Amino acid sequence: MARIALGLAYDGAPWQGWQTQPGGCTVQDALESALESFLTRRVDTVCAGRTDTGVHALEQVVHLDSPVERRMESWVRGLNALMPPSIRVQWACRVSEDFHARFSAQSRSYIYLLRSHRVASPILHGKVGWTHYSLELEPMRAAARLLLGEHDFSSFRSSECQAASPVRTLQHLEIYQQGDLFIFTFRANAFLHHMVRNLMGALVEVGKGKYPASWVSDLLAQRDRRKGPATFSPSGLYLARASYPEIFGLPSSPGAESLLSHLGIAVPGLMAF
Amino acid sequence: MARIALGLAYDGAPWQGWQTQPGGCTVQDALESALESFLTRRVDTVCAGRTDTGVHALEQVVHLDSPVERRMESWVRGLNALMPPSIRVQWACRVSEDFHARFSAQSRSYIYLLRSHRVASPILHGKVGWTHYSLELEPMRAAARLLLGEHDFSSFRSSECQAASPVRTLQHLEIYQQGDLFIFTFRANAFLHHMVRNLMGALVEVGKGKYPASWVSDLLAQRDRRKGPATFSPSGLYLARASYPEIFGLPSSPGAESLLSHLGIAVPGLMAF
Repeated sequence: MARIALGLAYDGAPWQGWQTQPGGCTVQDALESALESFLTRRVDTVCAGRTDTGVHALEQVVHLDSPVERRMESWVRGLNALMPPSIRVQWACRVSEDFHARFSAQSRSYIYLLRSHRVASPILHGKVGWTHYSLELEPMRAAARLLLGEHDFSSFRSSECQAASPVRTLQHLEIYQQGDLFIFTFRANAFLHHMVRNLMGALVEVGKGKYPASWVSDLLAQRDRRKGPATFSPSGLYLARASYPEIFGLPSSPGAESLLSHLGIAVPGLMAF
Repeated sequence: MARIALGLAYDGAPWQGWQTQPGGCTVQDALESALESFLTRRVDTVCAGRTDTGVHALEQVVHLDSPVERRMESWVRGLNALMPPSIRVQWACRVSEDFHARFSAQSRSYIYLLRSHRVASPILHGKVGWTHYSLELEPMRAAARLLLGEHDFSSFRSSECQAASPVRTLQHLEIYQQGDLFIFTFRANAFLHHMVRNLMGALVEVGKGKYPASWVSDLLAQRDRRKGPATFSPSGLYLARASYPEIFGLPSSPGAESLLSHLGIAVPGLMAF
């Protein structure tokens, strides 16, 4: 048995999220079906962060235990030949048996791309969120600073969230503007269900001028999802990376590098993300 | 009767090109069907540059004669509500009756986006071309300089091209690199059928190191399509804009601005394109 880690990128639009379902229209189903052909037997997979329907990944980390030896380059080419073009293995590496894609992850990073323009763009339809409102960057940045750190995020948690605790540490939240595109970068030890999309809902309300930045502190204090903003569209949401202790030796591909590599978007100041 | 100009952006992947066909799966069919609902009668449309199957537009200019008066904002909202999200009217304006989307255009600009990476990106599948070869920027730039100006482009012309003359003036051809993405910008008075994709085929061969830059001059001199390179994929090709005499008063949206607005890609030095 060899434990293998894979780095996966995918367009979430055609898929019903990561997690396997009886219908079989999920990223995990497509990957496990390709693995079954590639290895000639079924294996189970575990991912760093389960993405919802329509949510994309620039780098989803997955592990599995393979009963068969394969060269690392064969994993990439072989699996990609067996999957539709909306899912691509970017890299594969052998890892020690105590590596676990979910439990070894120290943090997850997400990027949200939002277009603010009178008209939605057909070019990145399904790949960016959209608002026809003009957005003010500085109030959103002020709100972002109030959200940083350890908080009870109950107001930003889906009613279906199964996490034992609503407390999370938001380590990073920055906002950049590039023409009509706003780029939101998030990193936390872990995220609650719908947490990024609910935070986006609040930040956009602040950016529109409907509420002051301090409103997000009120929402945190109320710890009540019913007081919170609407859940924002999944279209612009990307799982950018998960980070692991260096000892596991995974390839390092920071979120900003992935954004540049996949979408050609280079934002000044974002490189450290 | 009022002559109306529309600025259209579209994702070409789901469409069989611009020009109307009996099957009805073209951008023109979708637009004319929306116009028929919006105006309650059929009208004909003329575009600046007919795009092939799979080719996108950041700004395709279209004109039509409307028997009905509508506010300019109604054209945008009304037509967009009647079309799938892969086509969006960006602007509408009234123009004089001597405006003609095809014959008044002084030049057309195209952008080609090409990813050079071991693995294709699932995020921009169908929106960028892809090569797994590493590309050298400087030899491609040297070849680009040799292609500039007035030439007989027979070696870069589809056998199905119906233009009377194979002579065109390539006014602009620049290449930029942004991470794994190469951005090629073209402007000419007009283009032959498949001309940009055939030029791309040659530039990529030079970038790979298969031929020196001077090879493109040999190809021009041979005036023989059979000596030319393979036609490159339509996936990365965007009609960026058509330009018209200022007297017609169309909104000005340079190709670089459209690239930034729709894809969030800002390339240093590209702003003048």
